[in-house]
This record gives sequence, C-alpha cells and structure tokens, in this order.
Amino acid sequence: MKKNIELKIRFELVREQTERICEPLEIEDYIVQPMANVSPPKWHIGHSTWFYEEFLLKKYVKDYKVFHKDFSFIFNSYYNNVGDRVERPNRGFLSRPPVREVVKYRHYVTQKCVELLESSPSDEVLDIFEVGINHEQQHQELLVYDIKYILGTQPLLPVYGKQFATQKENEAGFFSFKAGLYEIGAKDLGFTYDNEHGSHQVYLQDFQISKSLVSNGEYLEFMNAGGYKDFNLWLSEGWDFIQKEKIVAPLYWSLINGEWYNYTLNGFEKVVLESPVQHVSFYEAQAYASWKGMRLPTEFEWECAADKLNWGQLWEWTNSAYLPYPNYQKAPSALGEYNGKFMSNQNVLRGSSVATPTGHSRKTYRNFFHASSRWLYSGIRLSK
Amino acid sequence: MKKNIELKIRFELVREQTERICEPLEIEDYIVQPMANVSPPKWHIGHSTWFYEEFLLKKYVKDYKVFHKDFSFIFNSYYNNVGDRVERPNRGFLSRPPVREVVKYRHYVTQKCVELLESSPSDEVLDIFEVGINHEQQHQELLVYDIKYILGTQPLLPVYGKQFATQKENEAGFFSFKAGLYEIGAKDLGFTYDNEHGSHQVYLQDFQISKSLVSNGEYLEFMNAGGYKDFNLWLSEGWDFIQKEKIVAPLYWSLINGEWYNYTLNGFEKVVLESPVQHVSFYEAQAYASWKGMRLPTEFEWECAADKLNWGQLWEWTNSAYLPYPNYQKAPSALGEYNGKFMSNQNVLRGSSVATPTGHSRKTYRNFFHASSRWLYSGIRLSK
Amino acid sequence: MKKNIELKIRFELVREQTERICEPLEIEDYIVQPMANVSPPKWHIGHSTWFYEEFLLKKYVKDYKVFHKDFSFIFNSYYNNVGDRVERPNRGFLSRPPVREVVKYRHYVTQKCVELLESSPSDEVLDIFEVGINHEQQHQELLVYDIKYILGTQPLLPVYGKQFATQKENEAGFFSFKAGLYEIGAKDLGFTYDNEHGSHQVYLQDFQISKSLVSNGEYLEFMNAGGYKDFNLWLSEGWDFIQKEKIVAPLYWSLINGEWYNYTLNGFEKVVLESPVQHVSFYEAQAYASWKGMRLPTEFEWECAADKLNWGQLWEWTNSAYLPYPNYQKAPSALGEYNGKFMSNQNVLRGSSVATPTGHSRKTYRNFFHASSRWLYSGIRLSK
Amino acid sequence: MKKNIELKIRFELVREQTERICEPLEIEDYIVQPMANVSPPKWHIGHSTWFYEEFLLKKYVKDYKVFHKDFSFIFNSYYNNVGDRVERPNRGFLSRPPVREVVKYRHYVTQKCVELLESSPSDEVLDIFEVGINHEQQHQELLVYDIKYILGTQPLLPVYGKQFATQKENEAGFFSFKAGLYEIGAKDLGFTYDNEHGSHQVYLQDFQISKSLVSNGEYLEFMNAGGYKDFNLWLSEGWDFIQKEKIVAPLYWSLINGEWYNYTLNGFEKVVLESPVQHVSFYEAQAYASWKGMRLPTEFEWECAADKLNWGQLWEWTNSAYLPYPNYQKAPSALGEYNGKFMSNQNVLRGSSVATPTGHSRKTYRNFFHASSRWLYSGIRLSK
Repeated sequence: MKKNIELKIRFELVREQTERICEPLEIEDYIVQPMANVSPPKWHIGHSTWFYEEFLLKKYVKDYKVFHKDFSFIFNSYYNNVGDRVERPNRGFLSRPPVREVVKYRHYVTQKCVELLESSPSDEVLDIFEVGINHEQQHQELLVYDIKYILGTQPLLPVYGKQFATQKENEAGFFSFKAGLYEIGAKDLGFTYDNEHGSHQVYLQDFQISKSLVSNGEYLEFMNAGGYKDFNLWLSEGWDFIQKEKIVAPLYWSLINGEWYNYTLNGFEKVVLESPVQHVSFYEAQAYASWKGMRLPTEFEWECAADKLNWGQLWEWTNSAYLPYPNYQKAPSALGEYNGKFMSNQNVLRGSSVATPTGHSRKTYRNFFHASSRWLYSGIRLSK
Repeated sequence: MKKNIELKIRFELVREQTERICEPLEIEDYIVQPMANVSPPKWHIGHSTWFYEEFLLKKYVKDYKVFHKDFSFIFNSYYNNVGDRVERPNRGFLSRPPVREVVKYRHYVTQKCVELLESSPSDEVLDIFEVGINHEQQHQELLVYDIKYILGTQPLLPVYGKQFATQKENEAGFFSFKAGLYEIGAKDLGFTYDNEHGSHQVYLQDFQISKSLVSNGEYLEFMNAGGYKDFNLWLSEGWDFIQKEKIVAPLYWSLINGEWYNYTLNGFEKVVLESPVQHVSFYEAQAYASWKGMRLPTEFEWECAADKLNWGQLWEWTNSAYLPYPNYQKAPSALGEYNGKFMSNQNVLRGSSVATPTGHSRKTYRNFFHASSRWLYSGIRLSK
Repeated sequence: MKKNIELKIRFELVREQTERICEPLEIEDYIVQPMANVSPPKWHIGHSTWFYEEFLLKKYVKDYKVFHKDFSFIFNSYYNNVGDRVERPNRGFLSRPPVREVVKYRHYVTQKCVELLESSPSDEVLDIFEVGINHEQQHQELLVYDIKYILGTQPLLPVYGKQFATQKENEAGFFSFKAGLYEIGAKDLGFTYDNEHGSHQVYLQDFQISKSLVSNGEYLEFMNAGGYKDFNLWLSEGWDFIQKEKIVAPLYWSLINGEWYNYTLNGFEKVVLESPVQHVSFYEAQAYASWKGMRLPTEFEWECAADKLNWGQLWEWTNSAYLPYPNYQKAPSALGEYNGKFMSNQNVLRGSSVATPTGHSRKTYRNFFHASSRWLYSGIRLSK
Repeated sequence: MKKNIELKIRFELVREQTERICEPLEIEDYIVQPMANVSPPKWHIGHSTWFYEEFLLKKYVKDYKVFHKDFSFIFNSYYNNVGDRVERPNRGFLSRPPVREVVKYRHYVTQKCVELLESSPSDEVLDIFEVGINHEQQHQELLVYDIKYILGTQPLLPVYGKQFATQKENEAGFFSFKAGLYEIGAKDLGFTYDNEHGSHQVYLQDFQISKSLVSNGEYLEFMNAGGYKDFNLWLSEGWDFIQKEKIVAPLYWSLINGEWYNYTLNGFEKVVLESPVQHVSFYEAQAYASWKGMRLPTEFEWECAADKLNWGQLWEWTNSAYLPYPNYQKAPSALGEYNGKFMSNQNVLRGSSVATPTGHSRKTYRNFFHASSRWLYSGIRLSK
C-alpha cells in the first residue's frame, strides 16, 4: 500500500478513536477543568485538530481557509512560536465555542486532511502527519486521565464504562541482569520521538527487576505499617508534598467504615487487592521502594529488561530524570518545542498503560511527568 | 385574592423568569466559573430550587421525598446550619448533574411547592415562601451579572441580547436637603429584609445630591485627566487594588486604536458617552468623586433623597459601611444566616438596576458588595 | 511660656520617651520583623526622626544638610507624595544602617529641631511640630505592640519589664443613656487630628454600656462554652479568619497541661482571670458580644458615654466602620495622607491603652485597625 | 601525628575560619534573612555548633550539660530525626538569643569538643568529627553566599572586603575526550560524602569541554543579542522563571546610564568583562549554551575531564540531575538525612569556588542546587 494511503487509514482510525473515548460523556463534562493540569475534553478535541490545521493545512494546502480565525488562540497549547494563547489554567473558563462547533471544526479539518493525504503529498507532509497522529494518540491517553479526574471529583461519582480497567498480576520474583554495556535508544524502525533518538551504549551494574507491578494489597501493607508517617522513607520534597496536600493514600482512594474504596471509571468500588496499585506519585513509589529496602529501576535498566517484562498495564516510575540523550537534537521550527524544552525537573516513566492507544507503545518510549503527578495511569515496579 | 393564591401566582412567575433569563445560553455556558465570585448559571438554578426544598418542602410536606440525596451538598451556598457543601470556588468543577437533570429537579420542586401553596398552608409557610421568592429574585439579578461576566470573558465575545441595557440620563444639577432628623428604614408594608428593619431617626447635615448618574463621557474625562495615575485621589486600599490588578478603566472596557469599546450583553461595541458609567468598583467611584471635589452620598442621605431621585438604572455606591441598624435582630435558625453575618468590610449600594427584577426594589433596600467588586451593575451618584 | 519654648520642652520629652521604650532591648531586637504589620524598632526610631527632617528641616531650615541621602528612601512609611520607599514587608531585611547610625541620625535631627524651635519659627512651623510630636507618640504606642510581638514570638520568651501592665477591673453593671441628639467630634481645644474634626450632631437610640471591660475569666467562659466552634456567633469573615488561622484563644495564649498561660512583657505567666481580656480581634470581640446576647457599642455611643466610663487600659473595639465625619477635609500636601486614605475596611477603636503616651488620649480620638488585628492593646466593652 | 590530634588541629582551624568570615559584619547583619534560602549568619554559627553538640557531645561525653535546653529547637536545620525546629523561612525572626550568647555557646562547644578530641576517643567519634568539620566547611561557603546576599540587597550596598574575588580566565579552546568507559566516584582516600561513594564505570561518548569559564563579556554578547527574550533558547521552566521574576541579567547586576554594574563583596562596581560570569541560574547557563549551539557537560564528563581543567573559581552547572550512584546507601540514623533525601529536582554542580574552604574540594565532589538558584557562586563551562 502506498505510504499516503496507509497514513490516511491510520489517520481516520485515530480521529475516530478520539471521538469514541468521548462518547460516554455529557456535554457538560467536556467543559470543566478541576485542576490546572487537567484539560477539558473539548479542549483536547479542539487542540488535536488545531495541530493539523496549524502545521499542515495552513502551510501545505493552497488557499486553505481557516475554520475560525480565533481558534488558533483558543486551541494552541504551549507553542510560543505559534503565538499567544489562552493560559492553561483558564481552559475551563471557555464555554464558547460550544462543543458542537468544535466538533464541526474537527470534521472540517479531518476532511481537509484526508484530501491532503489523498493528493499524494511530499514526504515532508507525510512526516508531519506522522507526528500529528502520534500527537493525537498522546492526547487520547491524556483524555482518559482527564476524564477520570473530572468524573472522579464529581460528588456524584458517575460511571464512564469498563474500558481502561487493569487486570490482576501475579508473577512473583525478579529477573536478574549482569553488569555490562547495553544498547539504549531507538534505531530507525517506524516513528519515534526526538527524545528517544540517538541509540547509544550505557554501562549498567548488576541489577534485578521485579516481574510484576506492586499490587494494591502490597501497597496497603505499606500504608498499614505507617508508611505515610515515617519521614525516613521519603525524599525531602516528597515528605513536604504529602504534608502539604494531606496525602495518606493513592489518588481516588477513600476510607469508608474501615474499608478502602476507590473511584474507577466503572464507578466507586472496593479496592481490588490483587490489581496493581495505580495513581501514585513518584514520591510515593520511591517511599514504597525504600520501605521494601529496594529502589526504583533507572530508565536504562528498564529498557534493558523490557523484552522479558510483561509491561503495559501502568506507566512505571523510574528513578531517572528526564534529560537529553547524547547528541540529542531538537527538531527545527515550532515542532522543536515538542520534547526538549521540558527536560528539567521531570521524571521518566517507561512502559505504557491500559489507556495507551494501540500502536503507541514501544520499549524505547520515554514518558515524563513531574514527581508529584498522580492523575496519570502510573504504577510501581521494584528494582534492587 | 387569598394570600396563598397570590403567592402561588408570584411564585410561578418568578420561577419562569429565572428560566427566561437563561434562555439565550448554550448548555456550556451553564457550567463555567471564570472567577470565584461568579457562580455557574446551573448552580443558580439549582440553588434557587434547593432553597425551597430545604426550608419548605423538607419541613412542611409530609413524607416529602427529596429529589436527590446529594443535591443539598451540591446546591447549598453558605448555610453552615444546613451542613457541608461544595466550596464556592469549586462550583465550576461540577459537570454533573447535567443541566437537564437540574432542570428536572427544578420542575419537581416547583410542582411540589405549588401543591404546598395550594394546600392553604400556615402563615409561617407563606412567610418562608415570601423569603424564597425574594431570594430567587436576588439570584436573578446575580444571574445577569454572572452571565455577563461569563460571556464577556470569552475570547469570542458572544451576543446575549438587548435585555438589561441602560438608557442615557441627562438631567444636570443637584437636589438640596436641609440638616435635620430624618426617618430611615422600613416600616411594615410588604416584604422587607431584616437588615432594613427598625425604622429609626438619623440626623443629617445639609447636603446636595446629583440628579443624574455620572456618564461614560464624564468618566472618560477623569481617565483622560490621569485619574487612574494620581494616588492622591484614591483610598490607600483602592490604590493598591488598581496597581495589583492593573486596572485603568471600568470592567469590560478595551482601548482599540485609540477608541474605547466595551462588552455589553448585546455584543462588543463603542462606549456610549451619554450612558451612565457602569462596572466600577467602590474605589473607582470614590476616586472619581474625589477628582470632582465631591464625595459619594451616605446611604442615609440617599434614602432621604430617594423620592426625588430618578433611580433604577444602576446600583449606586454609597460611602456607608454595611452595618446593623439600631436594634437589629437576625432571624432565628438557618435563615438568620441571610444578612447579618456579612456585616463587616462591605459597602452599601442603594437603588436598583436594569437587572433588578420587577417588584424587587424599594428605597429602603440595602444592597452590599466588597469595595473591589466590579462585575455588578454599579454606577456613581455624587454628593457634596 | 512662649509657644515655641513649650513645644521644645514637649518635643524633647517625647524624643527621650521613644528612646526609653527601647532601652530594655538588645541590638538584635531592633532589626527583626516577624510579620508584615510589625515594624522593627530601628525603623520606628528612624521613621519618627525622618518625619521631622522631611516635613520641617528640609523645608524650613536654610541650607539644611540631610544626614544621609538614602535615609528618606529607607524611613518613609507610606507617603506617596514623598517618593519611593522600602516596601513595608521588607523592613526586616535592613541590617544597615546599623542601630548606632540611626541613633546618630536621631540625635542629629533632634538637635536641628531644637535649634529650629529656639529660633522663634512661624506658626506654620509650630503646627507641623505639633503634628510631628503626635505622630511620634502614635509610633511610641506601636513600638510597644511591635516589641511585644517580637519578644513574644521568640522561642526564648524574654522578659522586657513591668511597664505597660494592666490592672484588674471590677465594677459590674451598665450605664444607661436616653435617645436623643448628641454632640460628636472635636471642638478646637488643643491638638486634634483631621479625622475627629467637624463637631456635629448624631441621633442615638436608648442604649446601655458596661462599666468594666470584659475580663479574662469571662472570656474563658466563652471559650469553655465552645465559642470558637459555634459559627452562628461569628461574622462570616470572622469565621473564615479563625478557621484559616486556626485561632482558638487570644493572641499570646497557650494551653499547658490544662492551664492557660500567656506571654506578657513581664514574661510568660498564668492568665490572670480578673484582668481585662487583651489581644482579641474585632471578630472575637463581636463573637463574644453575640454569645452574651449583646453587641459592641458604636463609636458615637462610646463618645457620648466617655465621661462616665473609666477608660484607658485597652483600646475598645466599636462596631463602627472608620469613615469620614460630615464635612471631613483632608489636609493639603503630603500630610493629607495621614488619615483619610485609610477610610475603608477598618474598624474604629475608642479610648486608649496602658501603652498610650501621656497626653495622647482624649474622648474624641478615633483609632482604627483592620478587624483581624490582634497584636494591638485591644479589649472588649459591651453594649445593649 | 595521632589521628585525634590531627583532627583537633583541623577542628580548631575550621572553627576559627567560620569566625573570621563573620568578622567584617555588624551585629545587625547576623540577624536578617532577606529570602527563605538565605540563613542569618547567627544561625550558621549556631547551627554549625549545634551539630557537634547533637551528634557528639550529647552522645559521647559523660554527663554532658547542654549549653541551653532550647538551642536544639533553634539551631536544628532539617533533621526530622532530631525533633522539631524553627521553620526555615522564620530564622530571620529570631532576635534572641543575642549574637554574644551564640558566640558563648560556640566557644563552650568548641572547648568541650577539644576536650573530647584530646581524650583519645573511639574511631566512631573521630569519624563523626570528620563529618562535623566537613559540615562546617559547607556552611562556611554558604555563609559567604548568604552574607553577599544580605549585604547586596541593602539599599546602602556596604563593602565587606576583597576576599572571595574571582580572577580573569583567558585560555581559549576545548579539550577533547574519546568515547569509552570511565571510572566515576570516590575511592577510599580521605573523607568523602555518601553521595560520591561507589566508584563505578560509566560509558561516555566523544565530547569536548571548554578550557575556561564563560566570561562576563561573552555573556553580555548573549544579553545584547536578546538572549533573555528568545524563548526558543530556554527550557520551558526556565522561560517561566525569568518571566515571573522579571530576570534580564545575572543576580546583582544593574544597568546604570547604559553601563552594567554589579554588587561585589568589595562594593558596587562596573562589571569586569574578562572575569567569569557569576550568579547565573542553571536555566541561564543552559540558555547561554543553547545560544552558542553547545550544551552544558554532564557531571560524568566533567569528572572525567577534571584533571585537565583549571577549575575552582566558580561551581559549574552540569546538565545532570542529582541522583544516587549505583549501590548508593544512605548512612544510618540522623546523619543519613544528609544527602540522600535531597535527590529529586536538583541539578549537580561540579568543581569548587573562591568561597570554598581550603581542603574542601575534590574532583568527585557533588554539589547540588535547584535550577533557579542564583545566589551561589555559580558559573558556566561549555561542552559539545
């Protein structure tokens, strides 16, 4: 199949999938922003549309007529090169354009993109489509996090559906690896981000890595042993964080009559002890590991072990800071604002999650969040 | 007509009017809360419903079945006696219940109230209905302020309609009053709030009060003369306020190519010089008066002059603090939280505005807001 | 005695008194600023010196040489007309000039002022000296508050001395007053501030006012009855204030093994039940009165009753907002920034305290603080 | 020489050196804390004393009598295991104990330590003395930073002295290194911290590293080229940081009539173009490197190149996050709170500075600060 037709098919599938994720929502759910890091679903569906309009249609379609002159201001996320924008914490103040208008915008841009793809465009255009598709897939995963946060903070705790649920894991024990030079980073097979480019060698010491993620039951032992009260287990910033935010359990957990419940997309229910613990910050992951007398893996250990691991239910916090690989080069132009500029004070997570779109995971993928983030689909794997 | 039937008719009209105010809105507009003092329209229509359920239906209707057990938590405003509630700044996080569910709640309660009213209830019940109707009328006015703020802060500046527009005023000059004892406060004719009860004498000095409100054109002279830059005109807190908030004009004004425009409910348009200046804080009103070598009236001077004044386009800032009248008694029970507990650090406004519901204005009415408030329908009348 | 000589004697006594208040301090105590409203003693002794230099010596002494060109920037308080200044919350960052240099500055200016006074200056100059002396006396009282706060928040709780202690009060009962017109405000006998000028009539209703201030023992009854936990007793802002600040007792009180202690300038000691309760905010005073089924007097009631009252141990919170009297005129020039610009969101206190300098109290004096202030020498008198 | 005698001599020299650093100060300078990260010199001299009392005298001297029971509360820094303490941002509120009392405390503890050292104590005791000496040396360097910040933010810009000045550097060009395995971390020769333990191999790619630090003149070119205005050069957090803090030049720089001046410990003077640029944050270092088309070295590259570099005028920002080495083990007990708990969101600096005490630098030393820190003696070395 020709590359443009293959891309067109993937493009259309991705566009549909974004809409499918939003299907269980009420119009009202598209609008709210209960914390600054959470974007309203309306914004996601507009922004993942704007990206194609801005970086493809405006540049490569002759006489392209923008859908609405103000939408670039409304749906730009953080691209300084593209101009001013609604400040992130204010996205939840936007009642207009109404959802149906954003959906119209979405369909208009989808249609124009399909036409562009069918016109046998240059490789440059196809490459940007590839970025756009991957960009939208990232927003699909964020959409799931944000929808869960929006619904999970409603007093009425509404049900979304059984999608995106995790399964029990139960393989005990550790895999062992020998010290030596290992190859890290993406080689050129399929799309990868600039932050994983530059395949290079890393010297690792002997290490062991656990076969399963830490379960809710194991995490409860930590809680019951006073883990949230023993400062010696915590990083200094982590301790300050849980004091200030009064955190005593993973996000979405509530203690009711002595039993732990949690909000899931399928409603409010008892914590399932055998499922992997979810919605913990890096700080909590690190404290748990410390309590076990172990540690979190580095991102290099993880990548080296990936082929043996059964990964993919939850993103796994590593003890690696998000930093450039040797010879890292950021892309030119606005697309260069994609990864490099976030390389400070973030932690790398590796793997993928039940919310990760099909085809959007690989062992070299470097996800990153601030150490205090809890609304993502994060879990804990131990190392020693 | 029997009192209960008369109340029923008024009750139904008021219920309809709240819904009429919301008619031009999109569903999305019902949800957002662009600043803490602004409540989402959905919240207003729920809260003005909850009030009857809480204070009437639950107490006086045998076997009354609440519409939803969680709505009391969601739609209570500030009544500590009634229990916990969603914190005011978080009202804009509520996507659920969806609007159509709140409308159902509204109709359910309206219907139950009509039945209660038709059942010839006690005077106690009728009195609380009277409070409920007046309470809802207050929220109707707040709804207009909040809708204007919500729409006026959208990048798309949508049009609502021609309702609630002000007219030009043009009677020059002042009315004069002689020093002496004047009667202040409500005597028992029709419904009044506890804060205006206790008719009593106040001794006033000679004073003069202007026949018209200050116009946009007059206010522009103050702006052009550097009024926002001359600290000697301002109260210390007012000066700090405009510095911190970078205020250089009334709310909703924008300078475009040397011309002043403002957002009105009918869209974004040139400032009409002859209309009364609107959306100024107490601090701006005071600074303007100071620049004119005059002052704002006290609430007592205003009430004494009211019969001669042509009032009603905009609430008028007075230089009176909101304090209890002699012998003020707050109502017992939760309804006692209505007025008295706000009697600190607020300024009294007198009169009414184009957004005030018919039948909800009288010369003894004491409205009150913080000195920095600008989103209400406020204007300036001078005194000397 | 000639007016200038009489003023010179008073001037010298006041200058000495400021220094006497600071005598028990360590050099280190002159420097710190444990909260924004508290100024370091070094700043007070510099500022009360700068006032004479700025408003007298620079203007009326030919070829006057300022002591140091930067001291105007350092020791100006809030006079916008005089230019830039160190921001109030940053006064505690100033280690330089060292205290001995400020004392030199102080003596230099004192000497120059004495020379000016001895030169038979104009009445205009003498009037400004009068303001300067009164200004310094106000700072003497603030010095006592600030010293107490500085020492009382040291972990070592150092002893200052037995000065400024209160006595027990024990006259029970109330004085009664009849409704009628009463004369309020200062007539021209001796120095008074612009905010008390404009003697005018006020009509008061019948009222009663208590003979003694509320005692610590009485206040403890309120505390023990759960006064700090019953929101119905509090103004809405007061309730928010004590929640946010976690206030459960007057400032400087600590519960140790079931007994209440408090820091006094004479050290940390058991609360004396018969002494008047001190260091309460307006909100606490109001809540206490509400618990007693009474209220706080207005400033007009207080002034009308003053001749019968035995006042002077503590400033008494009134339920009057600090607002201009009829025909209030602020002074021209920088001295006009003295009172008028603070006339919003402050409460009037009447009387005087054990920290008030001799000769600086009178029944028409209007003191004012924000409702949440607790570090001043404030107490409670009831009215009904 | 016996180990205890050798330590005694070093101990005494270090104790004297701390006092020598404070010699040019006024008493007042010991007290103030102009930002939360800066500690008052009084606190440093108390804290570096408390450390010996807490970890040595209390444990190893029979019947040791603490100098003052409250000093542990006052002079503990962040050791949760040792108990409560004055919150860091409140250190500048402590006027008591006065400086002379802290000096007495200091001499008392010094004397007791000398006695302990002379008593031929166990190796365990000698090891803790080693930590205590190194700990005090770290505070000596912080003292210099903090003194500079305290004096440099005084409006009077006082002179401290010519100590701690930098020299010009002028060796152009780069050293080149070949890819390969390099040994990183401390081997057991003399005292080292736990964070540099665990000598291990690291695989490095080819790299080059500059022979000199970036000079003020070179940095000015970046400034003049609009470096502080081009968001493409900055990390996202760095850009937000300089916007929020309105940063347009290194700390202590002022533009006066078109010429750049800076505060140095020797007073306010013109920026010397040939000296290394100082007082830049990691963000500024990174943006400068980005503007040059280069990057900052990693800490491993730096350590590998150290023997060739002429380092020691300023700490050099690396692009390495402060993370544990393989097999990192934190020390048991309270001393374990020394390094490990800070291993999140900090950047490593390597080398040393003119403010580093003699004998307290080595090529394996890992210094760390937050990326926004500017008051330390930091500079920029480039890599590519």
